[in-house]
Amino acid sequence: MLVNQQSFRTIWPNIAVDKVIATSVSIIDQTQLPHQFKIITVDHLDSMVKCIKTMQVRGAPLIGAAAAYGIALATLKSTVQQDLELAAAKLIASRPTAVNLQWAVQRMMPILLALNPADRIEAAWQEAANICNEDVAQNQAIGRHGLAIIQNQYQHKTFNILTHCNAGWLATVDYGTALAPIYAAHDAGLNVHVWVDETRPRNQGASLTAWELGQHGVPHTVISDNAGGHLMQHGQVDMVIVGADRVTAAGDVCNKIGTYLKALAAFDNQIPFYAAVPSPTIDWTIEDGLHEIEIEERNYDEVAIMRGRGADGNVLEVNILPSGPQAAATGVANPAFDVTPARLVTGIITEAGVFQPEHLMSIRHN
Amino acid sequence: MLVNQQSFRTIWPNIAVDKVIATSVSIIDQTQLPHQFKIITVDHLDSMVKCIKTMQVRGAPLIGAAAAYGIALATLKSTVQQDLELAAAKLIASRPTAVNLQWAVQRMMPILLALNPADRIEAAWQEAANICNEDVAQNQAIGRHGLAIIQNQYQHKTFNILTHCNAGWLATVDYGTALAPIYAAHDAGLNVHVWVDETRPRNQGASLTAWELGQHGVPHTVISDNAGGHLMQHGQVDMVIVGADRVTAAGDVCNKIGTYLKALAAFDNQIPFYAAVPSPTIDWTIEDGLHEIEIEERNYDEVAIMRGRGADGNVLEVNILPSGPQAAATGVANPAFDVTPARLVTGIITEAGVFQPEHLMSIRHN
Repeated sequence: MLVNQQSFRTIWPNIAVDKVIATSVSIIDQTQLPHQFKIITVDHLDSMVKCIKTMQVRGAPLIGAAAAYGIALATLKSTVQQDLELAAAKLIASRPTAVNLQWAVQRMMPILLALNPADRIEAAWQEAANICNEDVAQNQAIGRHGLAIIQNQYQHKTFNILTHCNAGWLATVDYGTALAPIYAAHDAGLNVHVWVDETRPRNQGASLTAWELGQHGVPHTVISDNAGGHLMQHGQVDMVIVGADRVTAAGDVCNKIGTYLKALAAFDNQIPFYAAVPSPTIDWTIEDGLHEIEIEERNYDEVAIMRGRGADGNVLEVNILPSGPQAAATGVANPAFDVTPARLVTGIITEAGVFQPEHLMSIRHN
Repeated sequence: MLVNQQSFRTIWPNIAVDKVIATSVSIIDQTQLPHQFKIITVDHLDSMVKCIKTMQVRGAPLIGAAAAYGIALATLKSTVQQDLELAAAKLIASRPTAVNLQWAVQRMMPILLALNPADRIEAAWQEAANICNEDVAQNQAIGRHGLAIIQNQYQHKTFNILTHCNAGWLATVDYGTALAPIYAAHDAGLNVHVWVDETRPRNQGASLTAWELGQHGVPHTVISDNAGGHLMQHGQVDMVIVGADRVTAAGDVCNKIGTYLKALAAFDNQIPFYAAVPSPTIDWTIEDGLHEIEIEERNYDEVAIMRGRGADGNVLEVNILPSGPQAAATGVANPAFDVTPARLVTGIITEAGVFQPEHLMSIRHN
């Protein structure tokens, strides 16, 4: 999507025209957003591992692409099986819970190991590019199917969509998942406006979603996570679209903490609530998300510490919680995700079409 | 309540034993909490106006008490009707939408003006003290009635209460409204634990509620506003108690933005949801809070700017939103309150007892 009027992906090989093999990969440093737009050149596997660990690249699909390019970078140093397996292990260990990371590595490795070592470099760069292009195509398809839903309800006045967290192009290679229909609608000339939930504790809405929508020129307004219900009560939200980390076979949606509260409010005000995901995000092995998905409890600091621009424009951190030894300690709990039961979900937007939760199984049967 | 093991109110006259007339009033500077506990001595009407304007004193009942002491301070300079009326006008203008401010001034003035100027000083200090003592007694009664509800459901294991914003002793003269039942339960030896909603955008939960609970020794845990629904789904919340800025005759509860989302989640998980208010907070002139209460839209900066301790311990502000001229501007919306419909409210805890929304009118008939 656009940044400073130029078209970008979140990750790309630095490559001559008509070549397949690059010497380095560029990424956007997402830890500096929205305050600085900084591109990092990565020319070594270990640097890519560090970028994944420090969340300079984040978002499930993008992490997968980064891991694929990590393997490609490793082939530049050695194409020996043992070295490649070491590279794969390093990448998988960089963020143990990221399913796409493992998926991308496990897709690359058999392809490379089936070839003569001499052919592995080109194959690695080619397969990493394939992974990226497939992600882009998938997200474009999600965008098209989501656009059809929006067009269906569009009444030639401002169409207000609320989203939570960042499931935009920054979380993928391009287009995003929840934001793909929004970009598609904006690019098709529809008058869409996005309510951007701040998304505490990590503020991915206020920092990443607001930034990427702003750069692409999509009208948007940041609100505290508390405000969405009130806006829905007053007819100011026409649709909710969120991403998801996991969708169960029954259509339960596991997504960033707070999604469930927005789904309740949407349901209470008869506003359609959609999750947009590539179909591999659907976990066919579980039905009941509420009881079968274990929710990660994250770090105290995410709640206590806020990052922003200080008076001099530099990025600073401040601690917002009480301190001091006399008082009873202020504890922090930080569950990272919640589960929205399928009964509150209008539909799941996938690259294969839009499905009501109870019809989700039909994707699998196709 | 306790601060550093000492008992405090939020406002008090500096006065010799057995005297009524003071020469100054002390307040806790709430803009410095939770980072610094600072007491300010106020010896002039204009200083009190400034304390109200800058929110060094905040919370409806406390603002009323501060205004009453503002009039008392004014009498030290002049007891002439014209001067007192000027003082009253300055106080009322300091925060135009604060109903208690106007109420306190309008209670003080006729009492003073009915007396000889020579008797007005003592009467002013006496009436300000009465206003404070009545607030304390009212909140203690709310505490007793709320305690009875908690005892009724208490099962001799940790009893988890979720609250939103700050309706604690810092918002009143002492004890608080929503927190009064919690302090009563803690002081009665019940094992209560409080989930403290951070309460964006102004963070009154993370800063004020966490601080006052900690100082008084009540176990508590700060959570992002997004987390409460998830905790309720997993049986970790036994009751929700919030304050309110206004309750309608039908039992609709207007309170800090985000309250409605918690009420929806409580309802969805069959968890009792209470609002605790002194009965004057009930507005008998309106029924339908959703359509009849106008919601204040507050400042952009409350969402954009976070205040906390920097690395060196000093209080700093940081801006969390995107900046920069190339992109479409990031707007901010900041509705300050929302309305929870009576259908989601289990009961209203008042000094006169606990009432289901549909029986609220019986208070008025008593």
